[in-house]
Amino acid sequence: MSFNFKITHKGENGRARTGVIETPHGPIQTPAFIPVGTKATVKSTLPDSISSLGAQAVLANAYHLYLQPGSQTIDEAGGLGKFMNWPGPTFTDSGGFQVMSLGAGFKKVIDMQGDSLEESITSSKERLAEVDEEGVTFKSHLDGSSHRFTPEISMQVQHEIGADIIFAFDELTTLYHDKRYQEDSLERTRRWALRCLDEHDRLTKERKERPYQALFGVLQGAHYEDLRKKAARDLGTMSSSGIEFDGFGIGGAIEKSRLGEIVGWVVDELPESKPRHLLGIGEPTDLFEGVENGADTFDCVAPTREARTSAVYSTSGRFNVSGGAYRKDFSPIDDSCQCYTCKNYSRAYLNHLFRSKEILGPTLATIHNVSFIVDLVAKMRSALHNGEFTEFKDSFLGKYNERKV
Amino acid sequence: MSFNFKITHKGENGRARTGVIETPHGPIQTPAFIPVGTKATVKSTLPDSISSLGAQAVLANAYHLYLQPGSQTIDEAGGLGKFMNWPGPTFTDSGGFQVMSLGAGFKKVIDMQGDSLEESITSSKERLAEVDEEGVTFKSHLDGSSHRFTPEISMQVQHEIGADIIFAFDELTTLYHDKRYQEDSLERTRRWALRCLDEHDRLTKERKERPYQALFGVLQGAHYEDLRKKAARDLGTMSSSGIEFDGFGIGGAIEKSRLGEIVGWVVDELPESKPRHLLGIGEPTDLFEGVENGADTFDCVAPTREARTSAVYSTSGRFNVSGGAYRKDFSPIDDSCQCYTCKNYSRAYLNHLFRSKEILGPTLATIHNVSFIVDLVAKMRSALHNGEFTEFKDSFLGKYNERKV
Repeated sequence: MSFNFKITHKGENGRARTGVIETPHGPIQTPAFIPVGTKATVKSTLPDSISSLGAQAVLANAYHLYLQPGSQTIDEAGGLGKFMNWPGPTFTDSGGFQVMSLGAGFKKVIDMQGDSLEESITSSKERLAEVDEEGVTFKSHLDGSSHRFTPEISMQVQHEIGADIIFAFDELTTLYHDKRYQEDSLERTRRWALRCLDEHDRLTKERKERPYQALFGVLQGAHYEDLRKKAARDLGTMSSSGIEFDGFGIGGAIEKSRLGEIVGWVVDELPESKPRHLLGIGEPTDLFEGVENGADTFDCVAPTREARTSAVYSTSGRFNVSGGAYRKDFSPIDDSCQCYTCKNYSRAYLNHLFRSKEILGPTLATIHNVSFIVDLVAKMRSALHNGEFTEFKDSFLGKYNERKV
Repeated sequence: MSFNFKITHKGENGRARTGVIETPHGPIQTPAFIPVGTKATVKSTLPDSISSLGAQAVLANAYHLYLQPGSQTIDEAGGLGKFMNWPGPTFTDSGGFQVMSLGAGFKKVIDMQGDSLEESITSSKERLAEVDEEGVTFKSHLDGSSHRFTPEISMQVQHEIGADIIFAFDELTTLYHDKRYQEDSLERTRRWALRCLDEHDRLTKERKERPYQALFGVLQGAHYEDLRKKAARDLGTMSSSGIEFDGFGIGGAIEKSRLGEIVGWVVDELPESKPRHLLGIGEPTDLFEGVENGADTFDCVAPTREARTSAVYSTSGRFNVSGGAYRKDFSPIDDSCQCYTCKNYSRAYLNHLFRSKEILGPTLATIHNVSFIVDLVAKMRSALHNGEFTEFKDSFLGKYNERKV
């Protein structure tokens, strides 16, 4: 087995740490932000650009790749990394989130606020994804065709895609599900986790000539401390077919204002020796909360998605570089940034590209945003090593939240 | 003055040659294909990708940059090369083609076939661009606002943009204009050429701290041998304010089947010592005709525009890589191609990107297409040097036109 996690430094609060995840395709120094390449491409960029800016790994989506081009095609191509020309470590998520949020058409329930939505998710018309004990039946967001994911199918799909780190198939709930439903769902996710371990073990043995894939269990439980802790204890000690999870994903609906608290709950229950990935988190404030409370890796579409709308990060907050104020601003997005975009291009040029609807606009903004977030988490790592995490956090967020752009 | 053209080898037919154009931003080994970056970006690519594939210069459009972001903004940014992060040589065309073809809404007249169109271009309703002795009044294709270009304004705009090689402002005619109109238009373009020389000289002296910009006269005359030769003689010997043209552009409506013939007419009349740029030509067959008949540089949107629709060049002809046949084709676009795309990606991956509408599809296809065309013209250069041009032409086009993809 060529998967390993080594803690290199522990923070003073007993939760935060630095470490190194070893994978068959190279190491990941943690904490680390992992850029998302949903469909086997970090949108609008060359892999070389993503690698040059310091990203150590990328995360793709089993759901999307299952639908197009098909996981078998990626298998025949020699696996995800070879298919997309990314020689470093790769992740795929299980599709659990996507079959529910995209396939079900209830993404809005996760994104929006309002009590009235509580009803809609329980009505069968809205729930285009049907959950049963065996798995989830869902409709493709591409063409409406019917598909079924089970823990076993998710494992098979992720083995065909061949990423270094894969995730167990879980049921996604929302903050609008009541506690009773959350409890039932959490139990189902626990039973699915056992089935994932069994199928993962079978596939690992069947395809033993392939590089080892590490399986992370996924913790749900919404904003309930007892459920989150139970999930962490259950999956943290789980063993089946003689194997355990190699690490853990913290997933599901999380109130942003309680992010650090919720991560802390599960971290205190999880085995210290295994890496923890915080799914779908990538805003600066949230990353500080996650690292401080013991998460090791992170992924999020925000830096890439925002970039395509011309929203760029700076140490003085986020701003839209397509705005009129930047037409003749010949300074870089951020004076202190060392990324390819900031070293070679002005805000005025990016403004021109976005106003001209030129593809290079999203490309350069994505390089900057991903660089900014990857670099921010790398700086948290250094700050932890130097015992200066709190000072760094206060200093960065103080200036960032002033939004003096 | 840091502009110079040196012929390094002459072909056996007395027309074709190899050479080196020296500019303030470096040399261009000719014959050479110059990729088009209309709005100060070669669409969907990083400048580094374009430079790495062997392109020696890029060509932008004065008309587009005048409208957005404005030529003054580019001047304030330090000129086109600095603005777009292209340290090598740059060209801009004069806007003569665009004010007529885009501003006038008669692009269709150039592109389409059919006698009925002859009427429409003479009707005032269709002619949103009005030509008079002083210049052209046209409407922006972006917002319909009214603008006016004269030879003087075109020179001022191109001096603000600051490319190394700029073109005189000419009137574009089409194959549907009668000979009488072509004669009148050619005389007007001759008078405008004189005004361009005068204004160029004035601006060169006024802005003498800037790198020298070379001015190329533009030859019109459609498919009339007497008019084409007259244009070449007129502009080839023209002098005003004590200066001459540094080179020549061959422009206007050209029947593709007579391309080599038409280029030959003007080449025989032009001074041998000055470079000749064939405007808007970039298909393999046309490039062979152009080089064989004495053109030194070429630009065309075809390689980049085709790439964005998934049409890619190969030594066995052009094909659409998004086609069903390539879903599981793990070979590169072209086995013999050494470009970044062919070295690192399969047809299956490009197929997936185009089917997923991922921006990286156009990016990788553009890198390949531009590389293919730049490389093809570089190979013509070697073949000329080695006295093997005809053999290379026959061998390449024989296979290319078989279209066994």
